[in-house]
Amino acid sequence: MTTTEAGAAVPSEGAGGAVTDHDRGIHGYHHHKDEHLKRLRRIEGQIRGLQRMVDEDVYCIDILTQVSASTKALQSFALQLLEEHLRHCVADAAVKGGEEIDAKVEEATKAIGRLLRT
Amino acid sequence: MTTTEAGAAVPSEGAGGAVTDHDRGIHGYHHHKDEHLKRLRRIEGQIRGLQRMVDEDVYCIDILTQVSASTKALQSFALQLLEEHLRHCVADAAVKGGEEIDAKVEEATKAIGRLLRT
Amino acid sequence: MTTTEAGAAVPSEGAGGAVTDHDRGIHGYHHHKDEHLKRLRRIEGQIRGLQRMVDEDVYCIDILTQVSASTKALQSFALQLLEEHLRHCVADAAVKGGEEIDAKVEEATKAIGRLLRT
Amino acid sequence: MTTTEAGAAVPSEGAGGAVTDHDRGIHGYHHHKDEHLKRLRRIEGQIRGLQRMVDEDVYCIDILTQVSASTKALQSFALQLLEEHLRHCVADAAVKGGEEIDAKVEEATKAIGRLLRT
Repeated sequence: MTTTEAGAAVPSEGAGGAVTDHDRGIHGYHHHKDEHLKRLRRIEGQIRGLQRMVDEDVYCIDILTQVSASTKALQSFALQLLEEHLRHCVADAAVKGGEEIDAKVEEATKAIGRLLRT
Repeated sequence: MTTTEAGAAVPSEGAGGAVTDHDRGIHGYHHHKDEHLKRLRRIEGQIRGLQRMVDEDVYCIDILTQVSASTKALQSFALQLLEEHLRHCVADAAVKGGEEIDAKVEEATKAIGRLLRT
Repeated sequence: MTTTEAGAAVPSEGAGGAVTDHDRGIHGYHHHKDEHLKRLRRIEGQIRGLQRMVDEDVYCIDILTQVSASTKALQSFALQLLEEHLRHCVADAAVKGGEEIDAKVEEATKAIGRLLRT
Repeated sequence: MTTTEAGAAVPSEGAGGAVTDHDRGIHGYHHHKDEHLKRLRRIEGQIRGLQRMVDEDVYCIDILTQVSASTKALQSFALQLLEEHLRHCVADAAVKGGEEIDAKVEEATKAIGRLLRT
């Protein structure tokens, strides 16, 4: 926990430099950073809850229910991140024109594919 | 982390009493408890890694890749738990005979359904 | 298509012989055969509907919605089949005792894993 | 079935008129229409194969393996459709500017969410 708090205190690099697409990508979820961190801390708490359940010999089915809840929470975190990525990173690439949009769309599609496969 | 360690130190109740189906269920993964806890601590570390990535404005797509890895890890933890549950809890109910097997199978199928929906 | 109709008309083999585990497995869903075939014909109709949608240039998002519906239908067909398999094939192996239950449980778990990965 | 064949024979309307966003969306996968139809016919064949398997009392686990293959095929069809949608429909909305990009991104994200939930 402390290490996480410490980690959370680490000053953001990346955010500084010239506005590259990478930064634009960052911008995507930058505005929602606190919300994302809150979500992830909740998920971290769920995983710790799973450790307690295993340690206390809770009935398997109840543990599986909690696993489903954690997976769902991770998926909806991913979806929100993806939406912000499309709205900013991909949309910016489209406006800039050129071949970049193809690369961005292919990259996003592959990421969606990885989410589907799991 | 400390709280988790503390939680992990909590003495197992459940394991004591007469051999009820609940205990049988416990038995399912009891033998693999340490392995399960190790897996879950690894997943907890992945979730903390996600917090760091968000905090340090890592590129969205790289965060999504890490989310996919965490989801996959949760799913395979669930699968192992399920296998042990089928091998013990469900198999015992089948041996005992009566209507219990139907209840156990329905319960397991619903749990699998919840895993699939996420 | 005719061949399918023909195929669908083909008399069930397998159901005849001595009661092997394979037949037990069969037994699992044998009682619900008509229900399963009805479900699968409905899904086949959904896939044909997708072909129509693509052919008639229906809006991508509407096609994706129909794909989600078909996938959901396939998953719940799989779940019902799995439930019957656990109730019969796996339960029978448990009653018979010996190592067979381990093989059956491992086999079922792998099948569930394949469903999860997709 | 005939109606389907008929449906499949219906000449594409949509493709004609003024270039609206809807047409742009169409354009997304229009170029790959034959490829999409070929994929979907293959999937239709897989579903028919499932009917034969059920009718011939094939072992449950082998049917589940085929279900997984069909679901995977549907998912990768959806992914390709989605990629074309992002590359055309969403990118066009970004270029046009205004609030439309937000609507398109939200719409696409919801479609991805439906694919994930199944």
